[in-house]
Amino acid sequence: MADYRAPLGDMRFVLNNIVDLKALAALPGLDAAEPELVDAVLEEAGKMASQILDPINYSGDRTGSRLADGVVTTPPGYKEAYRAYVEGGWNGMPFDPEYGGGGLPWAVTLAAMEMWNSANLAFSLCPLLNQGAIEALEAHGSDELKATYLAKMVSGEWSATMNLTEPSAGSDVGALRSKAEPRGDGTYRISGQKIFITYGEHDMAENIVHLVLARLPDAPPGTRGISLFVVPKFLVEADGSLGRRNDVRCVSLEEKLGIHGSPTCVMSYGDEGDCVGYLLGAENKGMRCMFTMMNAARISVGLQGLAIAERAYQRALAFAAERRQGRTPGMPATESAAIIEHADVRRNLMLMKSQVEAMRCLLYVNGAALDAARHHPDPAVREARQALTELLTPISKAWSTDLGCEIASIGVQIHGGMGFVEETGAAQYYRDARILPIYEGTNGIQAIDLVGRKLPMLGGETVRELIAEMRATAEALSGAGGDLGAIADPLSRAADVVAETSDWLLANMANDPNAGLAGATPFLKLFGYALGGHFLGRSALAANAALNGGAGNREQLEAKIVTARFYATQVLPQVDANRAAAMAGPELLFAIGADALAS
Amino acid sequence: MADYRAPLGDMRFVLNNIVDLKALAALPGLDAAEPELVDAVLEEAGKMASQILDPINYSGDRTGSRLADGVVTTPPGYKEAYRAYVEGGWNGMPFDPEYGGGGLPWAVTLAAMEMWNSANLAFSLCPLLNQGAIEALEAHGSDELKATYLAKMVSGEWSATMNLTEPSAGSDVGALRSKAEPRGDGTYRISGQKIFITYGEHDMAENIVHLVLARLPDAPPGTRGISLFVVPKFLVEADGSLGRRNDVRCVSLEEKLGIHGSPTCVMSYGDEGDCVGYLLGAENKGMRCMFTMMNAARISVGLQGLAIAERAYQRALAFAAERRQGRTPGMPATESAAIIEHADVRRNLMLMKSQVEAMRCLLYVNGAALDAARHHPDPAVREARQALTELLTPISKAWSTDLGCEIASIGVQIHGGMGFVEETGAAQYYRDARILPIYEGTNGIQAIDLVGRKLPMLGGETVRELIAEMRATAEALSGAGGDLGAIADPLSRAADVVAETSDWLLANMANDPNAGLAGATPFLKLFGYALGGHFLGRSALAANAALNGGAGNREQLEAKIVTARFYATQVLPQVDANRAAAMAGPELLFAIGADALAS
Repeated sequence: MADYRAPLGDMRFVLNNIVDLKALAALPGLDAAEPELVDAVLEEAGKMASQILDPINYSGDRTGSRLADGVVTTPPGYKEAYRAYVEGGWNGMPFDPEYGGGGLPWAVTLAAMEMWNSANLAFSLCPLLNQGAIEALEAHGSDELKATYLAKMVSGEWSATMNLTEPSAGSDVGALRSKAEPRGDGTYRISGQKIFITYGEHDMAENIVHLVLARLPDAPPGTRGISLFVVPKFLVEADGSLGRRNDVRCVSLEEKLGIHGSPTCVMSYGDEGDCVGYLLGAENKGMRCMFTMMNAARISVGLQGLAIAERAYQRALAFAAERRQGRTPGMPATESAAIIEHADVRRNLMLMKSQVEAMRCLLYVNGAALDAARHHPDPAVREARQALTELLTPISKAWSTDLGCEIASIGVQIHGGMGFVEETGAAQYYRDARILPIYEGTNGIQAIDLVGRKLPMLGGETVRELIAEMRATAEALSGAGGDLGAIADPLSRAADVVAETSDWLLANMANDPNAGLAGATPFLKLFGYALGGHFLGRSALAANAALNGGAGNREQLEAKIVTARFYATQVLPQVDANRAAAMAGPELLFAIGADALAS
Repeated sequence: MADYRAPLGDMRFVLNNIVDLKALAALPGLDAAEPELVDAVLEEAGKMASQILDPINYSGDRTGSRLADGVVTTPPGYKEAYRAYVEGGWNGMPFDPEYGGGGLPWAVTLAAMEMWNSANLAFSLCPLLNQGAIEALEAHGSDELKATYLAKMVSGEWSATMNLTEPSAGSDVGALRSKAEPRGDGTYRISGQKIFITYGEHDMAENIVHLVLARLPDAPPGTRGISLFVVPKFLVEADGSLGRRNDVRCVSLEEKLGIHGSPTCVMSYGDEGDCVGYLLGAENKGMRCMFTMMNAARISVGLQGLAIAERAYQRALAFAAERRQGRTPGMPATESAAIIEHADVRRNLMLMKSQVEAMRCLLYVNGAALDAARHHPDPAVREARQALTELLTPISKAWSTDLGCEIASIGVQIHGGMGFVEETGAAQYYRDARILPIYEGTNGIQAIDLVGRKLPMLGGETVRELIAEMRATAEALSGAGGDLGAIADPLSRAADVVAETSDWLLANMANDPNAGLAGATPFLKLFGYALGGHFLGRSALAANAALNGGAGNREQLEAKIVTARFYATQVLPQVDANRAAAMAGPELLFAIGADALAS
């Protein structure tokens, strides 16, 4: 099996040319992100990925996490890897230095996370969820809660979980039934069962901080009656030391299609009537806190789509370079070619490569928008960047995770029969990737969020600005002419389709919500493909400028232009392919009755 | 878990309206296919599927086939199911009554096979391979070989395997190294190792007839030096009884992503220097025999794509009708809707349904063309039908198996978190389906076969005829107007794209074989989507005619028209999405050097 290799070259290209890291590092509070430090950090993060996390990825899948007597044992090597991760200070990268964080931008943190997730998706889920919980605590926690939990969570000594789902409350969070009763001392008695709790119990951290959604007595129905609670596995004494075990336990693990290393727990709260929880944020305002947590997590899950795609690409590429089968046109019958020389295999590799690079731009830009929304000195810019990061988040999550699955599948295909055999490792990525379009809000939910909440934001201004940027990119490409000029037309056409479909949705949703719901997924898809074309178009322009200036790695820069042209020809037409569906409305979806669908 | 339900209504619709079963039954030798008999046969085949094969599908996946001391034990219930299958006479359905076959058309046999494969893909692979071997023996076997083997193989008492692949000879069959030396008595001494041999060893049949590709001493290199041999597990005595064990054994089983019930064997021939084989066909003409075998198997594997998609659809539909989450627009906050009422879920279900029905048409038509090629009294019609079945086969195989994977993935998605948990069963289809684009010639190989061999057949006449048929369908739809008229334009446009791309490929391949190889997969995809639109358009026309005539099941007929319209809007644009890629040529594929791809 090919070892994981950190794609630092492309990461730097994206951070410097698409994200504008220099501008980001100039913002107050982000000055840690000076170029040499970022370079060094990413190089070390890459070593963490390739030397520590990658070697236990396949074995962790084979062993899986196990539950016995309430104790979850993670696969061999996980505990040691987590210790190295905490000792390296990796967990705190993007967080407030006040709590021991590194104060680095999310744009840079995402690059590091990409490598860890490429190397070991199942392992990296644990810190991923921890991050979301830290965000929620930072934003909504009382001074006391922050003082008690944040430093340990930022360091990673304590991990954290998100407890939303119950058997009858999945996408419909508002249907949850877990209870929280005031105990009279400011704390709450928590009871109920939660399912699909990732790393709900494990042996890697000293303590586990569960963030649990529950209802107070007499809370209003639905999402307006939900509160969020901090429920530690071990209660924390006044001096910060760990006290007694709280009344919370893992009662079973799910047997899953993939990410076997990661324990997916059924958690039971308050079986003995003594589960202590601490209110986080205001009563009945739990959904707001949860969204803070989920927004960070949704970008991160989108990143996982990119990460697994990059890993699948690397493995397929290594296999294609080694495996010899058949001959290229004109080759003597006595010879055989590495399959990478076959046009059809090469096409598959280019599909992987171009979409990976497009996703990388989208994800890092999404992270950079979040950074600017928090750190820019101008409130108007902060508002605009906040709107941008919110708009991009569902696209990052859904488009990148759908592609993660598709690209992992191409990876299996390039392996031929060996791809279907588990020992090759390609099949693991295909299995692992499949959770990504589901968790942290299914991709259908993301599409509804995009169309229902994000598209109408600021009167549609954020989308209009993005479309204007796409058109400006197309114009610049057209101006550059030559190989770049060939990208201009398809990109310009893609921008037109985004404009046309978003106008149609805004106009029609007002009268018929189902018009938006029916077109949501095709719209998200075409928006994602169009953004990919836009970012690769900008990449080609930047590469062209560098080539003309004689700067940089010539091979890499020329490849950027080829990749953008390939994407424009072979991938970007997906924008058009989703156009009619985005504007089709609900008529045909409901024209066959539910019963008749089965006949 | 929802039980499998035979989709007899749609099968009859396709057989009567798209295949024209009545015309088929009028051909000499196919008179067994009279409507009442076919109805009864399919109903019974459906019971075999739902009552016997479906109940052991999930458990068979959990248990898997096991190897111990050279003996392969299939999962509980497999042996009994196979006995019922043989006793029911199912194995012989399409074969010559002279050897105990049923003399039914392939078009009808495929409908029965669809149900068995929907119910249990892993089990149904065994008879599928048996069929290919029977075809090869019927076409190329000596009278003695036929007399010795055919009746037992047609009944299914003996199963059969196809032994092509070796560790260094996968897609490149010509690279194989297994040897066959004349023993001086007309038989051959076989030696070598074969991998990925499906049902190479098992406990369901009395004997296993291996068809093995090997090289004679001093055979020419490559595919022109390959011969095919019959190598029985037990030698057959003159009186037809089983004699001594032949020197062939299963040395290990692969650990696979899916189809766990089906043993995938590493087979070793002649470890003790005493493996007896019988030449099938002429020396060094093994590839020709193998193609006979593979062509039948390729249609059948395409059918497996349809079958797994149908099963995934049924399960997702049942889940969506039961699972309640959230509310539809306007629903009171105290209520909750079955998720089938949500537009985005309904869109996914319609994607599944419409593409399943399109595939069903393609596969049965492909089978019917094979029937006519063999049974039509007019040699000119036979030739045309032969060309048609050969043209359609790679599309059936590749397009349907890619869709099988995609639709199984949509099935997982509709289940949300439950889809990722193995106990739901949706994940099994996702895993099982993934082998289909790989075996019996990867889908890349199919595309190359389509472009390189099939497209140029008869000077491109077969493709031109299909395009003319598509245009005639579009015209008829346009003439019908109303709801049907809306399908005409997209279909007409699709026919234009097929014409444009096939002309381009024919014109450019002559000078640059890589031009064809580069565009092969996008061309196959767009051809498949276009044919789907054509067949659903014809279905809509037939449904409309029946509705106007007041005949048939109104609900089913109206649904057919809706399904065709949905496909035209949401699926058919994939034709255009693959257009540019089909004609892009190889330039951008090879513009980045193999080394630079990794940087």
